[in-house]
Amino acid sequence: MLGAIEAGGTKFVLAVGNQSGEILDKIVIPTKHPDITVAKVIEYFKDKKIERLGLGGFGPIDINQDSPSYGQLQKTPKTDWVDYPLGATLKKELNVPINIDTDVNVAALSEAKFGNATDVDTCLYITVGTGIGAGAYYHGQTLKGLSHPEMGHVKVRRHPEDTYQGTCPYHGDCLEGLAAGPSLEKRWGEKGDKLVDSPEVWELEAYYLAQALTNYIYVLSPERIILGGGVMKQKQLFPLIRKNVIEMLNGYVSSPYLTEDKIDEYIVSPGLTDEAGVKGALYLAMQ
Amino acid sequence: MLGAIEAGGTKFVLAVGNQSGEILDKIVIPTKHPDITVAKVIEYFKDKKIERLGLGGFGPIDINQDSPSYGQLQKTPKTDWVDYPLGATLKKELNVPINIDTDVNVAALSEAKFGNATDVDTCLYITVGTGIGAGAYYHGQTLKGLSHPEMGHVKVRRHPEDTYQGTCPYHGDCLEGLAAGPSLEKRWGEKGDKLVDSPEVWELEAYYLAQALTNYIYVLSPERIILGGGVMKQKQLFPLIRKNVIEMLNGYVSSPYLTEDKIDEYIVSPGLTDEAGVKGALYLAMQ
Repeated sequence: MLGAIEAGGTKFVLAVGNQSGEILDKIVIPTKHPDITVAKVIEYFKDKKIERLGLGGFGPIDINQDSPSYGQLQKTPKTDWVDYPLGATLKKELNVPINIDTDVNVAALSEAKFGNATDVDTCLYITVGTGIGAGAYYHGQTLKGLSHPEMGHVKVRRHPEDTYQGTCPYHGDCLEGLAAGPSLEKRWGEKGDKLVDSPEVWELEAYYLAQALTNYIYVLSPERIILGGGVMKQKQLFPLIRKNVIEMLNGYVSSPYLTEDKIDEYIVSPGLTDEAGVKGALYLAMQ
Repeated sequence: MLGAIEAGGTKFVLAVGNQSGEILDKIVIPTKHPDITVAKVIEYFKDKKIERLGLGGFGPIDINQDSPSYGQLQKTPKTDWVDYPLGATLKKELNVPINIDTDVNVAALSEAKFGNATDVDTCLYITVGTGIGAGAYYHGQTLKGLSHPEMGHVKVRRHPEDTYQGTCPYHGDCLEGLAAGPSLEKRWGEKGDKLVDSPEVWELEAYYLAQALTNYIYVLSPERIILGGGVMKQKQLFPLIRKNVIEMLNGYVSSPYLTEDKIDEYIVSPGLTDEAGVKGALYLAMQ
């Protein structure tokens, strides 16, 4: 039996599954103070006889297996969790090997193995919600190096008519500061789902997201880009983003997937919904 | 015996070497019309009894092994070479398997295997010269996907006092348009080596390069960044770039290598000089 944890900022999904990737049992608990939440995690797994555990965690989190602080949360805005040794605590209490990656890397892995990128070797998964995060799957591995990607914090060029200062506590008007859900609400005075009939909202949102996607294409050259998260439930964003990406690339990268013909197959919605995180975490445990 | 080609925009370096990575013979020829240059390449290798050939080429070039146009040049500014089937021609004339990658990916590979990144698993190599290009080495492989990276064409935020329109024929004021050698010369009216005593030149150059590096760190999280190319011979750029990167990250990514203490070991010069390209190409042939 294998254990899987999707450790999100609002909820934890806990599951057990088998070596074939089937989920056999699953519960969802709210993310509260780590003492409360982690006690419930331990309680859930303690009699399940798991041999290994996979965890996709909200970040920033140390995902370097050789590091003494492997699995430790870092400067997260969820202050209760700053520096919390999630990996070490679980390893000690459950006494099993644990494989940890970021929630967004796990989502990219999950889309590559079970979702909308099973036919390619490389993909990028981006979530646009209360924050903007991204993970990448490249030729069998998720993307990591000095640390893990923090693609939501890239600097983008401001739209000439946008004077909103941005919400990021670290960078002000980085991509996340200008285009995540909270910035959208603060700029326009209402939540996104009340603004569906205001085209200027989505034109501006698509301008920033497309600019970031264009830069990600230049840097990473993924074979597919998957856009998820709460803000991307506004499906009118997809055609606007695709159009802007084609215009911004201006024909520089040669691929039919970067033309009107096939960009619908290149910038897509997630193939997995609720189970993406936990299925990816189970895949981590399988390795 | 193995063959290696560094196919650059101004010169081709041709070499033969052995499976241990030693170069046994080497010549340099100028890059002219492909009919002239490629004839010399074939002449050089034809009696060398090579079993395999590695090639690092200027781009854009098709590096997808499954593509019918593998090794074909694309929209290069060197118009004689647009659509030239370099890979197919060499394969046909020399009748050996050929492994092709971009010149900058090969430089990253070479730095990882023989140069200034042998102690890490991931690195980014950036050349700042007549153009700006970058390659990356991640856990044993160079970075490729839909195509190869074109990191020089990322959009950067303009310096508020910079009114220069940029030189990129595709994007105007992308990074390459604002910070490659030709833009430097056109903006300031003189070549970089005549401007050594003008600090404003290098402050602005460092601002743009650091902004791009900061975004690359957010997207790729490399364990080392190597800066080469003609413009980077201006060594005064290194401390300016490092200082700007630390300021722009603003503490968001936790690593001692992104602090004043250790950034000198993080953003570095190439470890290899003249032989980087051809040694990397030989490594491609070894695989």
